[in-house]
Amino acid sequence: MRVSVLGATGYAGAELLRILYGHPEAEVVHITSESHTGENIADLYPHLRGLYDLTLESMQDIERIGRDSDFVFIGLPHGHAMAVGQKLANLPVRIIDLGADYRFSDTKVYEEWYHVPHTHPNAPRCYGLAELYREDIKKAKIIGNAGCFTTASILALVPLAKKHLIDVNTIIVDAKSGVSGAGRKPKQGNHFPELYDNFKAYNVAHHRHTPEIEQAITDLSGEQTIINFTPHLVPMSRGILATCYATLREGVTAEQVDAAYTELYGQEHFIRLLGRDAYPETKYVRGSNFCDIAWHLDARTHRVIALSAIDNLVKGAAGQAVQNFNIACGFPEATGLDFTPIYP
Amino acid sequence: MRVSVLGATGYAGAELLRILYGHPEAEVVHITSESHTGENIADLYPHLRGLYDLTLESMQDIERIGRDSDFVFIGLPHGHAMAVGQKLANLPVRIIDLGADYRFSDTKVYEEWYHVPHTHPNAPRCYGLAELYREDIKKAKIIGNAGCFTTASILALVPLAKKHLIDVNTIIVDAKSGVSGAGRKPKQGNHFPELYDNFKAYNVAHHRHTPEIEQAITDLSGEQTIINFTPHLVPMSRGILATCYATLREGVTAEQVDAAYTELYGQEHFIRLLGRDAYPETKYVRGSNFCDIAWHLDARTHRVIALSAIDNLVKGAAGQAVQNFNIACGFPEATGLDFTPIYP
Amino acid sequence: MRVSVLGATGYAGAELLRILYGHPEAEVVHITSESHTGENIADLYPHLRGLYDLTLESMQDIERIGRDSDFVFIGLPHGHAMAVGQKLANLPVRIIDLGADYRFSDTKVYEEWYHVPHTHPNAPRCYGLAELYREDIKKAKIIGNAGCFTTASILALVPLAKKHLIDVNTIIVDAKSGVSGAGRKPKQGNHFPELYDNFKAYNVAHHRHTPEIEQAITDLSGEQTIINFTPHLVPMSRGILATCYATLREGVTAEQVDAAYTELYGQEHFIRLLGRDAYPETKYVRGSNFCDIAWHLDARTHRVIALSAIDNLVKGAAGQAVQNFNIACGFPEATGLDFTPIYP
Amino acid sequence: MRVSVLGATGYAGAELLRILYGHPEAEVVHITSESHTGENIADLYPHLRGLYDLTLESMQDIERIGRDSDFVFIGLPHGHAMAVGQKLANLPVRIIDLGADYRFSDTKVYEEWYHVPHTHPNAPRCYGLAELYREDIKKAKIIGNAGCFTTASILALVPLAKKHLIDVNTIIVDAKSGVSGAGRKPKQGNHFPELYDNFKAYNVAHHRHTPEIEQAITDLSGEQTIINFTPHLVPMSRGILATCYATLREGVTAEQVDAAYTELYGQEHFIRLLGRDAYPETKYVRGSNFCDIAWHLDARTHRVIALSAIDNLVKGAAGQAVQNFNIACGFPEATGLDFTPIYP
Repeated sequence: MRVSVLGATGYAGAELLRILYGHPEAEVVHITSESHTGENIADLYPHLRGLYDLTLESMQDIERIGRDSDFVFIGLPHGHAMAVGQKLANLPVRIIDLGADYRFSDTKVYEEWYHVPHTHPNAPRCYGLAELYREDIKKAKIIGNAGCFTTASILALVPLAKKHLIDVNTIIVDAKSGVSGAGRKPKQGNHFPELYDNFKAYNVAHHRHTPEIEQAITDLSGEQTIINFTPHLVPMSRGILATCYATLREGVTAEQVDAAYTELYGQEHFIRLLGRDAYPETKYVRGSNFCDIAWHLDARTHRVIALSAIDNLVKGAAGQAVQNFNIACGFPEATGLDFTPIYP
Repeated sequence: MRVSVLGATGYAGAELLRILYGHPEAEVVHITSESHTGENIADLYPHLRGLYDLTLESMQDIERIGRDSDFVFIGLPHGHAMAVGQKLANLPVRIIDLGADYRFSDTKVYEEWYHVPHTHPNAPRCYGLAELYREDIKKAKIIGNAGCFTTASILALVPLAKKHLIDVNTIIVDAKSGVSGAGRKPKQGNHFPELYDNFKAYNVAHHRHTPEIEQAITDLSGEQTIINFTPHLVPMSRGILATCYATLREGVTAEQVDAAYTELYGQEHFIRLLGRDAYPETKYVRGSNFCDIAWHLDARTHRVIALSAIDNLVKGAAGQAVQNFNIACGFPEATGLDFTPIYP
Repeated sequence: MRVSVLGATGYAGAELLRILYGHPEAEVVHITSESHTGENIADLYPHLRGLYDLTLESMQDIERIGRDSDFVFIGLPHGHAMAVGQKLANLPVRIIDLGADYRFSDTKVYEEWYHVPHTHPNAPRCYGLAELYREDIKKAKIIGNAGCFTTASILALVPLAKKHLIDVNTIIVDAKSGVSGAGRKPKQGNHFPELYDNFKAYNVAHHRHTPEIEQAITDLSGEQTIINFTPHLVPMSRGILATCYATLREGVTAEQVDAAYTELYGQEHFIRLLGRDAYPETKYVRGSNFCDIAWHLDARTHRVIALSAIDNLVKGAAGQAVQNFNIACGFPEATGLDFTPIYP
Repeated sequence: MRVSVLGATGYAGAELLRILYGHPEAEVVHITSESHTGENIADLYPHLRGLYDLTLESMQDIERIGRDSDFVFIGLPHGHAMAVGQKLANLPVRIIDLGADYRFSDTKVYEEWYHVPHTHPNAPRCYGLAELYREDIKKAKIIGNAGCFTTASILALVPLAKKHLIDVNTIIVDAKSGVSGAGRKPKQGNHFPELYDNFKAYNVAHHRHTPEIEQAITDLSGEQTIINFTPHLVPMSRGILATCYATLREGVTAEQVDAAYTELYGQEHFIRLLGRDAYPETKYVRGSNFCDIAWHLDARTHRVIALSAIDNLVKGAAGQAVQNFNIACGFPEATGLDFTPIYP
């Protein structure tokens, strides 16, 4: 398959190039960057030297790129993918957007949280969380790749919510991410000496991944869900740990909780159930497409605490995009993604 | 005042020496270590070279140390301070224990969570969280210095609980600590390559700081409290951030929340109220005795999210011990503690 | 090929498993650990969960393992591989030792620096630095895989020494390594809070990689070489940067220096010449088998400063071992190693 | 003494405020920042909240600030202090410049390395390395505070050079610094994800601290000196380790080397001689004004390897500035600087 990457110089775009390098069924034909047009990707990202010899193009002539490609991956800030989607609407190319533009079934929710009008509300799209929306992904024209925090949170919570083991309105997700999640553009708050040896929360009560988690839990449980989501920055580059709290419905047993996870994910290659009372660590999944999940029950408070770990740039972005690509193409799902995490 | 430090080679003990070096009213007369008896502290801790020239003694002859001292600081693992307390019971020396032995008014709770019998249940003691138990600290024979996670958590939650603005049984504390909190003794899990570039939770639902937080909230609110407390390890040496969730009682306004913090802490030197919608960072308090607090209200979920940051070795251990020492001696509370955080 | 890994639970052994997982021509048949015999590797190293389901064996019955295997990789502390080599001497199995036992052509040098008698001095062996000893590696019974610091240092210096562009006795190598190079066993000096946010030198003037560098420079330049080598610990897990100084012979031009690198390495897949005045970074090679090299000339001092970066666990250990395995088997050299570095 | 800080929002300026807070003889009267004029310093640097309540001024009316102050500390980029120095030339105020403008006795050297014309070449000034230029500092109108790398390098090398124990033209300084040395302004290369878990060299053969080291060694040894100086970035915020190599003159003994250090620095409070074969670590000095020094002799190569560690923002900038201030005022040299390093 001929694939192109729009916004190839962001961290998610660069990670796509890393993964696609080893994908036996994908050939990268175009990569774009408006700020680095004309530069060679290996000059910008020396880790790719000797592996890629591609020049960054502008996406001004997006139709040409679209005609040349079977798939276009979009790694642009929100608001830009909508324009691309419209321009490619009548070409046979399919789209995987790593941003938020195509993640919401109700674009009013998008407009409310992202503060921009949605210009492509009727796009034929689906939500790109591979394990939970596989059938939709197979045939969608546009796949709205799930966000990083949301992937970790939703995968940890859905077994509980779908089986109605928890009161969905007691859900609190306390999430922690490495700094690559904040993007490649330098700013004061992400300057090395400011974050190193430091820990902080941000965007309490209004992070944009909140409605995305609510949408998936509501959709898959059938229960209208409102949650608290609190992101934090960990002084490291990659990795997300989500600590998810919810009150168990009366009478729910530990065995029911165990079974909920096993039934839903027992056959999934990229979800590793560490089991009850275990501890995922971000380092166990670093560089890989795995989502590791464990859960704890607190008899004193009748709460369940679910923990999940992913690499935010892989399962939280580029890896999941390739997984979705594999599903969309009918390839085995681990094609090009069957590598081990890097530890230590 | 003549002071001695038992267990001077642990991180909290060493931090006591750092702080006491600049204390105009304290002279360190004895320091002990059973594993390093006879060694000079500056050989073990080269950062103290040129500043201390003291030999580590055994605490076998604890009575002699007690007779020589006006105050004894104890930085030993739990279970050991009880024995010291008993042996010094009839001497005029006062004790500040940085461990858990003297933190609980109901020693049954201690026995349940620490799995050892309490051998000194009737000790004349008080809970050593300076801002909240100041009057007791002034006259107590034994001060059970508050724990690190607990100091951060309790200080953030008490204004809300005391004013009955929250439902105390909805409290969830999601806390994150630097690795010095795990002590100086090397083990596999704290080996540098294992923790670096890594993030994880531990002791979910059964960390020993849980009942300590519950005791203080129950005591100061008058309402029986059971909470969830989840600690995490941040790949850094020092610092704790506590993210505290609770459901607001119906009708509680943001102004009431603001007022609760201001009323209780407005005059406190070591508590800095960053205000509503602000963000404490562990780096803002590193090396200092400050506890920075901020709070957020989520209108969608009717929850308050309170954030607090401390240096776990200072306000969470040695600094608070010196603050308690100042209170107990009638010195101005910031004596020897009036220094700035180290940033960046 | 059937391969076994002795000492699979050390960091180098685990890294071998990571790489071999993706090697199309290798099947891991035995893995050993004396301290974890009987355990499943995925329990010890959860990052391998779902990828390996192998039980750690003892290597007591090493002959059986040797008979089952075409290749045995040894990841044991120095001194242990010699015993294995002797026991497998008469079996057709070939050996790649990641330790120092088989690196020296003159075992007296080994005995002097490692302080143990060499019990297998006549072993049919070669030095396993792939790019420089390829012909020997093809046919050797035992390959003494080059060390981590030495790989970085030798690759940076050999073009200059071989072409006689420098005075070899002015060589100073100032090298910096991530902490995984110190092994998986916890000790006080590698305890997280001690190394984090810290930088230090160690083993000045007597690190054991010194004679290994001297051996290769002497061998490939034909000039007896004595150098200074100074290792430092960087507060990170992986990566080595070697800063190599030498005085240029009179009249040597920048173009001659450029040509020396290009001639020797221009066709090498795993050596990336960044060129004159460029800067390798350890992050550009992390997780990969690349060695990135650049060089600078100082007209004021007539010195050349060569810089090289590797991942100490890949090109400095397990990756080079697999590269040597490929050479020894006649496979294309990048088989199983053709993946990109992980950045950021 | 009334002191003002120009450029108070850079890292060195902020560190000055941290240290001056505890100085019993200094009162901060003006602080300036052109980019943050009118803001409160505690809003910009929340770690100073509750400790400082000062508004940042412009330095446009520098004469007024000069008239109000006994001392002006300058924390501005090079080139700006010259203009200030000229404007304050006729006022009784004294100046301590933390930049390079007043460090060179021969301003031609400055112009050559800094690529700007020196507009104040005849300024009455001295080089501000406290232990080595104390007499000059006592009476100078303008003190050109020594640089960070240079302080560490010069202090380590001068005992050897002054006693003619080494060939000064064999000096190589391989230095490593935390990232705060690169300043507070964010840029791509110092973006957190780029530097974290990474190590690299920069400015090989042309870093501006090179001529500053050469000037001091030449001056204090009486021998014209040309050296190699190579800086590296360590993924941490603070701290410099300098590894200094030089060839010993024939016949020089270890005892002579030991004596050189002891004679020169034996009575210095802020230089701690760890002794022969010891290892300074940046963490031993973090947050303090100490310079820890050790040295090693290599009998095989006849070289000495001297190691020194400082906190780049303290002894390498603000701490040394206050030390110079104390010397200039006739205060005991440790006034306001007598605090312990922060470990771990």
